[in-house]
Amino acid sequence: MNKKIITLITDFGTKAGYVGAFKGVILKINPEVSIVDITHEVNPFDVWEGAWVLNSCYEFFPLGTIFLIIVDPGVGGPRKPLLIKSENCYFVGPDNGVFSFIYEKESARGGLEIVHITDERYFIGKPSSTFHGRDIFAPVAAYVSLGVKIDEFGKRASECFKFKIPSPQISKNEIIGEVLYIDGFGNLITNIDQNLVDKIERMNSLEIIFKRKKIEKISKSYFEGRKREILALVGSTGFLEISANQGNAQRILRAKKGDKVIIDC
Amino acid sequence: MNKKIITLITDFGTKAGYVGAFKGVILKINPEVSIVDITHEVNPFDVWEGAWVLNSCYEFFPLGTIFLIIVDPGVGGPRKPLLIKSENCYFVGPDNGVFSFIYEKESARGGLEIVHITDERYFIGKPSSTFHGRDIFAPVAAYVSLGVKIDEFGKRASECFKFKIPSPQISKNEIIGEVLYIDGFGNLITNIDQNLVDKIERMNSLEIIFKRKKIEKISKSYFEGRKREILALVGSTGFLEISANQGNAQRILRAKKGDKVIIDC
Amino acid sequence: MNKKIITLITDFGTKAGYVGAFKGVILKINPEVSIVDITHEVNPFDVWEGAWVLNSCYEFFPLGTIFLIIVDPGVGGPRKPLLIKSENCYFVGPDNGVFSFIYEKESARGGLEIVHITDERYFIGKPSSTFHGRDIFAPVAAYVSLGVKIDEFGKRASECFKFKIPSPQISKNEIIGEVLYIDGFGNLITNIDQNLVDKIERMNSLEIIFKRKKIEKISKSYFEGRKREILALVGSTGFLEISANQGNAQRILRAKKGDKVIIDC
Repeated sequence: MNKKIITLITDFGTKAGYVGAFKGVILKINPEVSIVDITHEVNPFDVWEGAWVLNSCYEFFPLGTIFLIIVDPGVGGPRKPLLIKSENCYFVGPDNGVFSFIYEKESARGGLEIVHITDERYFIGKPSSTFHGRDIFAPVAAYVSLGVKIDEFGKRASECFKFKIPSPQISKNEIIGEVLYIDGFGNLITNIDQNLVDKIERMNSLEIIFKRKKIEKISKSYFEGRKREILALVGSTGFLEISANQGNAQRILRAKKGDKVIIDC
Repeated sequence: MNKKIITLITDFGTKAGYVGAFKGVILKINPEVSIVDITHEVNPFDVWEGAWVLNSCYEFFPLGTIFLIIVDPGVGGPRKPLLIKSENCYFVGPDNGVFSFIYEKESARGGLEIVHITDERYFIGKPSSTFHGRDIFAPVAAYVSLGVKIDEFGKRASECFKFKIPSPQISKNEIIGEVLYIDGFGNLITNIDQNLVDKIERMNSLEIIFKRKKIEKISKSYFEGRKREILALVGSTGFLEISANQGNAQRILRAKKGDKVIIDC
Repeated sequence: MNKKIITLITDFGTKAGYVGAFKGVILKINPEVSIVDITHEVNPFDVWEGAWVLNSCYEFFPLGTIFLIIVDPGVGGPRKPLLIKSENCYFVGPDNGVFSFIYEKESARGGLEIVHITDERYFIGKPSSTFHGRDIFAPVAAYVSLGVKIDEFGKRASECFKFKIPSPQISKNEIIGEVLYIDGFGNLITNIDQNLVDKIERMNSLEIIFKRKKIEKISKSYFEGRKREILALVGSTGFLEISANQGNAQRILRAKKGDKVIIDC
């Protein structure tokens, strides 16, 4: 049997002792589990960003991995704590949209089982109303890693909350997409996917317009054109990105999430 | 037997190779140990902050955990390297106040054994006078994880240096506390603990005054009131916090460590 | 047999899911390997800094450690992916200078074997042209950790690209060095090594001039002089540093990489 893995995506930062606290909670319950830091640098309270980060990396992990996602501005409020089992892995976190991206993909692959976590036997002490990451989500993930069955934690739920993910608007000669996420290099990742780009590339000519900047081709790598030149390519997440060769496109173009990208073809 | 754990709290940041160096030192001595990053983002030279972070998370870890705390502005000076064994765990770090918070709690639980680390057999080469984290503290922690007894490392010491932790001033109708620590969300954590808050809540009315702002109740969670509204609650560390719903109270109130909070009741 | 270790040095930051993705790739291939974060905070595209960080910590790790270095501004361009085996350990990364420092030391210790990675059996899917860290370097490191022989990955190469590392200019009464690296504390690390400092210290007098500041001795530790006083010492990496007692010399002196330091003796 493979070694069990619990991965962490949070907005806690690593300055305080919070991440330490829930790593301790996990290891006290299952000292043999591997804890893998994905990120603690999600923008505070930015559930969308947490959902994106999860989506961009979870498929690379081994079968059976337990993904703990703690971006939880509504802690102590009415949002439910959830445990989700897909065909390949487990997800633990608040029902606030953080599972929006993975829900589509994983439910297409097979039955998703969603549990509303309520059984206090698997909580730490009397849970605080301010830190369910430590008191509910971390211990539940640890007990899942020990083999506790999902129905032990609470009743089934039929759905979870999902953001509306904007689709590109497609007409005969034009596609209008938008920036969904900006990474640490300043790459502007849009909602125009590989399939759509493949179709566009079969056209005779194309012009990408972003913030008055015109780009006339799809590049193959960041390393094209002059240094800091703006280019467009399909990045490693499978979506069209506006990027800069060895530069930060976000800063050069003063771009932000939601900015429109127009492709004329 | 449980897998041994060494946790890391440092002010080194993760940009340079220093953290890598002492992770390497630990793994060369004990390749089987689990290294757990708590934080490397303690404010440089801020021993108080290191002491707070340790205190806020250490109790969640398994029995036998070895806590390595390297916030050491006096490296190469007269401060002693210490190894402390409590009933539940081990602490390794400089004698500069970094153990101030845990000392009280752990000595109340049972005998604390303090060793002044001097035996060079457990050091790396001839220790530098600039990086005891790598040359003394990391290898000592690793040898402790291998089962070397604490008296092998040096002679017993009777005490360690402790900061004076300010207590709230309590009079008949007023409590004056202060901000001890500010976390990454901007929550202002004070020295007024759960017990004191419980007493206050039994009063007919209360008014919390912080930087001319008046707060008239103790909230249960961050998720109360309007967005960015300032509120007071007992946070996950067990102390009264001044916070903002999905906002950064430190920035909104321009607060800093040591700022006074007054409760009239 | 020791547990296998793969260490990570990247410029990805930890905000996005990229680091998570290649940790997942590694663990899917070898769930038993220990992944050790050295840093993900190398300045974006700064190959020199990545080379320095690697050099400053790799010798502390156990025999057989696999060092993965992904600072790769030329991804998708002509630079080759390399696997290097030294007497003690393995290095995986792009042929862009990131091995400049370790090449000298490791080739002096014994034969260096360099392999140009080309065998797609060890890649993830059809590699993207934007993220070889995930698609080539991470899986290759993981297969090395499983014991796959280096010649399985491609043909031998005789050389790798190396930066010219500036040497100090030494004349009868003067040494002119320069700042090679600035760490997170603001310590300015120069190219003047311990041996050269030992020679200088045997002189009757010395004067170090840095940005019009005069320093008249070599200190033993950071903890000398007044708080924030500028001092010179041989730091833990074995080179002369310009530093400040509990302060940030980079900020106090507005220093940058390449700034000259002059020693008159």
